[in-house]
Amino acid sequence: MIGKVLIANRGEIAVRIIRACREMGIETVAVYSEADRDALHTQLADEAVCIGPAPSSESYLNMQNIISATVISGADAIHPGFGFLSENSRFAELCEQCNITFIGPKSQVIQSLGNKSEARNTMINAGVPVIPGSKDPIYNAEEGAKIADEIGYPVIVKAALGGGGKGMRVAQTPEEFVSSFNTAQKEAQMAFGDNTMYIEHFVQHPRHIEFQILADEHGNVIHLGERDCSIQRNHQKMIEESPSIALTPELREKMGDAAVKAAKAAHYTNAGTIEFLLEKNNNFYFMEMNTRIQVEHPVTEWVTGIDLIKEQIRIADGRPLSYKQEDVHITGHAIECRINAENPAKNFRPSPGTITDMYLPGGKGVRIDAAIYSGYTVPPYYDSMLAKLIVHAKNRNEAIRKMRSALGEVIIEGIDTNVDYQYEILNHPDFISGNIDIEFIENLG
Amino acid sequence: MIGKVLIANRGEIAVRIIRACREMGIETVAVYSEADRDALHTQLADEAVCIGPAPSSESYLNMQNIISATVISGADAIHPGFGFLSENSRFAELCEQCNITFIGPKSQVIQSLGNKSEARNTMINAGVPVIPGSKDPIYNAEEGAKIADEIGYPVIVKAALGGGGKGMRVAQTPEEFVSSFNTAQKEAQMAFGDNTMYIEHFVQHPRHIEFQILADEHGNVIHLGERDCSIQRNHQKMIEESPSIALTPELREKMGDAAVKAAKAAHYTNAGTIEFLLEKNNNFYFMEMNTRIQVEHPVTEWVTGIDLIKEQIRIADGRPLSYKQEDVHITGHAIECRINAENPAKNFRPSPGTITDMYLPGGKGVRIDAAIYSGYTVPPYYDSMLAKLIVHAKNRNEAIRKMRSALGEVIIEGIDTNVDYQYEILNHPDFISGNIDIEFIENLG
Repeated sequence: MIGKVLIANRGEIAVRIIRACREMGIETVAVYSEADRDALHTQLADEAVCIGPAPSSESYLNMQNIISATVISGADAIHPGFGFLSENSRFAELCEQCNITFIGPKSQVIQSLGNKSEARNTMINAGVPVIPGSKDPIYNAEEGAKIADEIGYPVIVKAALGGGGKGMRVAQTPEEFVSSFNTAQKEAQMAFGDNTMYIEHFVQHPRHIEFQILADEHGNVIHLGERDCSIQRNHQKMIEESPSIALTPELREKMGDAAVKAAKAAHYTNAGTIEFLLEKNNNFYFMEMNTRIQVEHPVTEWVTGIDLIKEQIRIADGRPLSYKQEDVHITGHAIECRINAENPAKNFRPSPGTITDMYLPGGKGVRIDAAIYSGYTVPPYYDSMLAKLIVHAKNRNEAIRKMRSALGEVIIEGIDTNVDYQYEILNHPDFISGNIDIEFIENLG
Repeated sequence: MIGKVLIANRGEIAVRIIRACREMGIETVAVYSEADRDALHTQLADEAVCIGPAPSSESYLNMQNIISATVISGADAIHPGFGFLSENSRFAELCEQCNITFIGPKSQVIQSLGNKSEARNTMINAGVPVIPGSKDPIYNAEEGAKIADEIGYPVIVKAALGGGGKGMRVAQTPEEFVSSFNTAQKEAQMAFGDNTMYIEHFVQHPRHIEFQILADEHGNVIHLGERDCSIQRNHQKMIEESPSIALTPELREKMGDAAVKAAKAAHYTNAGTIEFLLEKNNNFYFMEMNTRIQVEHPVTEWVTGIDLIKEQIRIADGRPLSYKQEDVHITGHAIECRINAENPAKNFRPSPGTITDMYLPGGKGVRIDAAIYSGYTVPPYYDSMLAKLIVHAKNRNEAIRKMRSALGEVIIEGIDTNVDYQYEILNHPDFISGNIDIEFIENLG
């Protein structure tokens, strides 16, 4: 039985995990960089260990230091959160070698799904629909251009090890291809230390629809419905909701079945997410499987009532799922807005600094996952997300009105945030009518 | 259709009502005393009108000023919240005369139910069980002592217009009776300007179980299950939960039926609460009906998903209930802790003053209804309740653990609060096992 968990992360997700552990009677160890001495997760955990200087590579990405902190503190498990080492198969492997329970899937599964070509082949073999694209890795633009011609334009070039929008470029025409490929490859090399690329048909105006999966070590796999994450900027999600207005019960069942099939084909265990692109004609294509808890997991938690972090820990502990597929019911509608320290008027430039005054709303149907407080200094080293504002109401219209009301109450002074920008989206006729796709923000201009 | 609501209240309930109105697209008018210029409700409403000096009698209880503010601002309805004028039938009548929609029951109904003797007779006639007690009003101790002998000791002396624990005294023996009666009557005269008393058999070690009612103007009455409010100090509730661990499904149905019968007998409309005492042998007795929204309404909201304030407004607008009895399902378990500005070590002495630093928890299953912020000065004139911390989880044990975790995170500096005291209750073996009655806190010593 897991008795003590080290949280290899920071910010609101570290706080989220500390809370879940505390509620389960599990002790917690926070790790923190020198820049995060005053961070909420550092203060909130039962113990806290400094793991190095501010840059992530020297602390939150420093595997040796994190493993040492785990051993020294006597923790028997690590929760990686999202980002940082959460989808690093070498880190999961290191945990396995050190007899530390990694709260996530097995290292081999992370590796297979993290390699997009391999993941794609797994899905093709399992009968899960994928976007037409290159079968083998591509290393140069010339070779890529030939394959792009076969697939048909527009195409998208993607880094095999990519994620978060890095190492991706669209080419609408053969003329654009070479420069798109080279830019994406250069980015991939810098971000992931790998220049393996692949190419796909680019689906026009799709929605981003993802399915939450839970899979235990006893062969049980269920899905918890979908999240519509179409509101994105540069492939970074800004607003997520569940359920999606675009899905009929029939389509939900069809996509949910495909998601469960995908997880089973990958021999997946723990919580995971199958990302699909959904075309207007209701065709859907597997994009990738995220082998971690997602930023947007609260919207699923609210419509299903299921605590995903607690389920992750139970699964990692070898216990069977607490729910069967028929126990999962979607009630009402949930929306999440990511509150970031950034200035939308200045091309979303990050805005670190000290929060001089703060007020966050509350009340019925309002959830806040945050790691900030009045007087807290947002360090410049990490992701700009400050807080997640999640609302739940009877239906989508009521949830939108609730989110507008809640956003209208937020006060964060001393730094710039995207709160007013989010408020504008929530008031946009196309968002209100649900007429959205992944180009929504781009089209706002 | 109600288009603009004046909220004749302050604090967290005013904020709660403003939020509900905003989500319904209804404009809001706050009223505030001179001491509440910087209060959250004053800042949050679309408009705010000062209605007088700090003492309640000159502002929040000043009917003329509130009616004037309503007329001047063009509001077509008043929400009275709880406390202040919420159960004042003369105020409701004044609204009726001025063609202002009072968001609550009709003035006649408030009057009938506010008079405990009359309410009791209504319930006896309707077949709702009541505690054996005096049939007629009692004005002096001598007369009372005779009736107490007939009823059988222990007895409790209560003010006919009482509430909130004022004007109530228990007499265990005939020897104690005269002084108990006189003290209670003196208190009643001071608090309510009325010395009408009555006497009841005192039920030993009961639980306080109350049923939430919704009734529309078309004859539909439903109940939303019970709240267990046994954790009280001097008849002031401190912790409330739903459902009650003491109720079997059969008992819930029986008490729920009695509650609906009670509401129908009183020709009740809008949201209301039937308070029962529940004996260990499962006998239950009608205590009183509260003709307003209750402080503890969020626990019912969370287990049923129903927004009580929005339903109140819809009912007052003449619309039928949004739910039928068979639509009401209790899911999971909710607990509320009232966070008060008071010092438990100094006999719960109120602790007004400036909040110099504040952190309130969030996350899954945590709701905060509050009207405080860092830098806010709690005025000395009003109720000491600062905030309500409400949690929801799959079952009672998990809800208790969540509440402990959440209470542990609360930081309110600059003033004293009862947070640590609440934390201790949540850790008490009798509370954890559910072995509680209304003497729980008294017995803590």
